[in-house]
Order: sequence, then C-alpha cells, then structure tokens
Amino acid sequence: MNILITAGGTSEKIDDVRHLTNHATGSLGREIATCLQQENVRIHYVYGPKAVLPSKEKIVFHPIHSVKELEATMKDLLTTINFDYVIHSMAVSDYELGSATNEELLAKELANKISDLKPETSEELEAIIKNSLLETSSAPAQKKISSKNEKLILVMKKAPKVISSIKKWQPTTNLIGFKLLVDVPEAELISVAQESIKKNQASYILANDLTTITENAHLGLLVSSTGVKVRFNTKKEIAQGLVDLMITEERRLK
Amino acid sequence: MNILITAGGTSEKIDDVRHLTNHATGSLGREIATCLQQENVRIHYVYGPKAVLPSKEKIVFHPIHSVKELEATMKDLLTTINFDYVIHSMAVSDYELGSATNEELLAKELANKISDLKPETSEELEAIIKNSLLETSSAPAQKKISSKNEKLILVMKKAPKVISSIKKWQPTTNLIGFKLLVDVPEAELISVAQESIKKNQASYILANDLTTITENAHLGLLVSSTGVKVRFNTKKEIAQGLVDLMITEERRLK
Repeated sequence: MNILITAGGTSEKIDDVRHLTNHATGSLGREIATCLQQENVRIHYVYGPKAVLPSKEKIVFHPIHSVKELEATMKDLLTTINFDYVIHSMAVSDYELGSATNEELLAKELANKISDLKPETSEELEAIIKNSLLETSSAPAQKKISSKNEKLILVMKKAPKVISSIKKWQPTTNLIGFKLLVDVPEAELISVAQESIKKNQASYILANDLTTITENAHLGLLVSSTGVKVRFNTKKEIAQGLVDLMITEERRLK
Repeated sequence: MNILITAGGTSEKIDDVRHLTNHATGSLGREIATCLQQENVRIHYVYGPKAVLPSKEKIVFHPIHSVKELEATMKDLLTTINFDYVIHSMAVSDYELGSATNEELLAKELANKISDLKPETSEELEAIIKNSLLETSSAPAQKKISSKNEKLILVMKKAPKVISSIKKWQPTTNLIGFKLLVDVPEAELISVAQESIKKNQASYILANDLTTITENAHLGLLVSSTGVKVRFNTKKEIAQGLVDLMITEERRLK
C-alpha cells in the first residue's frame, strides 16, 4: 500500500523575522506513521516546521512551510504516484499574507478611494471601503516590517484550500481528512465533519475538539457520511483505528 | 555572579489555533549559558516557546510565551533579585494583537465613523480613518476566528518595550542587549545599536544582521557607546566573548 500522510502545521511568512503559525505538534501524524510502519506499506510524509517526526523506516519525507508550498508538494505527489490513502492531518492555515500596512498608509489609501468615488449614501461609502479592503494587492515581501507605526495591520487573504484539491488531483485515492474545532457541541462537530466529507469527497473525517485534547487523552470521532463510525479516546487509539480501517479495506478489496 | 539571560522568541496568540511568532531558535542564548556554566555563577533563564535549552546545571528556568508574560516575569525577577548582568538576547515582538476583524466589520465601523463626523476635506477624511484605526479596541480573544470572510484583518498594536524597562526596574544592573537587523550596511547597524544603548541605558549591544547568520557562522559586533569593541564570527565566539567580558569586569571591580 502507498500512503500519503500530512502532519504538523503550516507557517505563513509575514516578513523575514515574523511568521503566522498554526499551533500543531504533529504528534498524531507521527503516531499514525509509527503504527503503519508495522505493515507492508510505503509512506510519503509531508510535514510542517517544528513537527515531531516518526523514524525514517519505510518513509519518504517532504518538508513544507507555507500553504503554497503544501499545495505544490501535494499536487506533485498526487499527480505522479498512486496512493491508496491520503491521511490529511496537517493543520493548514485558512489565510496567507495579502498585505502588511499601517494606520497611516491604510487611511491614505481609503481616503483617496472615497474622495475619488464620492459616495452619496452611507451604504455606498461602506461598499467602497469594503471593496478597497478586498482589493489590497499582494504587497512585495519586506525584509523586516518597520515598527515605527502605532499599528501593524496585516490583511490576510484566503489561502488555497488544499483538501478540496486532493480528489481532483487523484480521483481514485481514499481521503481521510481531519477537522479541529474549539469548544463546540458534539452534534455541531459531526455536522461540520459531514459537510467536509461532502465538499471534499472524503471517505472519512476524524473530528476533534481542542478542549478534549490533552497530553494523555485525545477524543476523536471517526465520521462517515452516515454518522459516527468509531469513537476514540487517545492518539494511539486513533492511529491504530485508522490503520486497522485501511488494512481491513485493503484485504476486503483483494 | 547572578546573571539573567533571555533567549528564543516570543509568540503572540491570535486565537486558540493561530500565533504570530518571532523566528528565533534560542541557540545563541543557549551557547552563552553553556559558557557561563563553567564559571561561578547563578543563572536565571527566561525563554520563549520552542527555544533550544541549555543543561539545567546552575540554571533556574522561566518559560514565557507573549511579550506581556515576558514583561511580568522580568519585572518580578528584576525587583526581587540583584543581577550583575542582564543578557537580553530574546527576539521580542514589537506588536501584539489589538483586534482581529474582517473586511465587512471594518468597512461598517469606518463608514459609521465617517457618516457621524461628516468630514469636509480629504485631509479630515483621512484623519478620521486613521484615528478609527488607532482606536480599535482590544477585542476579546476568540476561540477560533471564523474563516468565512475573504480577509482576516489583524490590527496589531505596540507591545510593551521590555528592554526600556530593565534599567528602570534595576538601575544597578549591567544590560547587554541584542539588535537584529536584516540586510543593512554595517554603519547603519552600528548607529542603530548606539541609539539603543542610549535609549535603554545598555552597557553594550550585540548587533547582528540576519543575512550574515548561517548554521556555522554568526557575524556579531559588540557595540558600546564609543564604537565597535569586538568583532565575532561564530555563536561560540560571541558567547565566550560576552562571558570573558563579564568575568573580567567582575574581577576588576573586586
């Protein structure tokens, strides 16, 4: 079996010394890889900066930093190698840097736009400001953003949705996605997971909530389109459960 | 001798899953501590998340995350223990989160302000927008900022300047600060270091440039109010040079 695992978190560069990071240790991805190493598999392991790593046995490693780099690496792998499963456990940033500005520059930019377009109503005024904020172009990366101004205003734009592209790049693969929410009712967690299954053509989503993850416990719901298939209580259980699932499916198909 | 070392980088929480981090490994701080452990000293070691750490011999450790936490820890230490030297090598964020918003909310807020105040000239309009951006109040920390909008706008405000308070909290200590710039002429690096010496009552500033730091080399200028005192080429040289300086001064004063 060929398995593609993503683990850890992405890190978006703000300037040469600042980054916007997603808090994720990669320990769940490592646990899954460690379980899989007992099986007859070949693993490609895509991981973010600072992620803890499994031993190298049966693994090809692919380090990435930003969502853009993740997208390029995944596209390359999924359009050249056939994977039985993609286990996408990486915490991927929803946003990347659009532009970095400050109160003076942004005020000047918006005032110019408004003066040019001369809005007649409050609604027109609001629309002009909103459109200006939407337009803010990709600013050239700065070496180190000056700290002279009172405010540093980071306008983050939507990053590419990598999970949505996985089945487009390789329609025959089986996708197991992950969904992390914070302090929501279980019913909401399940419904959000099922939306993601539908939208991204995933086989399963492992749904979890940051408030039920500790050093020793990790509540996880394996959600399919029909509901909760299995309920796990630790990272080890999640990892072993996912590996069992893949191995059983694999045997059934042979 | 009592020495206070700060090392690594700060990390400002954006929400439960996102952080704005300063890229800093803490390896220079660790090197200085390792050199100092050979001497008759007591070290207090204040470090940011993910910083690499020295062995625990002769060290009391104080972990921090944000600039606010750094400020509280430093104030507590410097108002209760007498330190011969403070080696402030930590990369401290200039900004912390003021508020997190999006293009819709910010447009509404600015449009309301403008409609209320009815500016008559383009200059008045610009001033109103600028003041609104300066005012954006401390938003309550969100669990996980929604990713529904096109833009995530992070309005970062000035964080406390910890280096400026060190000599206020403990006027008798000797402060060695660090200044990291990116790709500037050496003359600028030196003049910025000397400004910092004056402003923060530092004895020395170790000035360095990100473009001359690699795995094996680390160009560093030990700057005093009169000019460049020593020129170092590696982290080891910087660490040993600072330790020699402290030990020699100490002997001279006895």
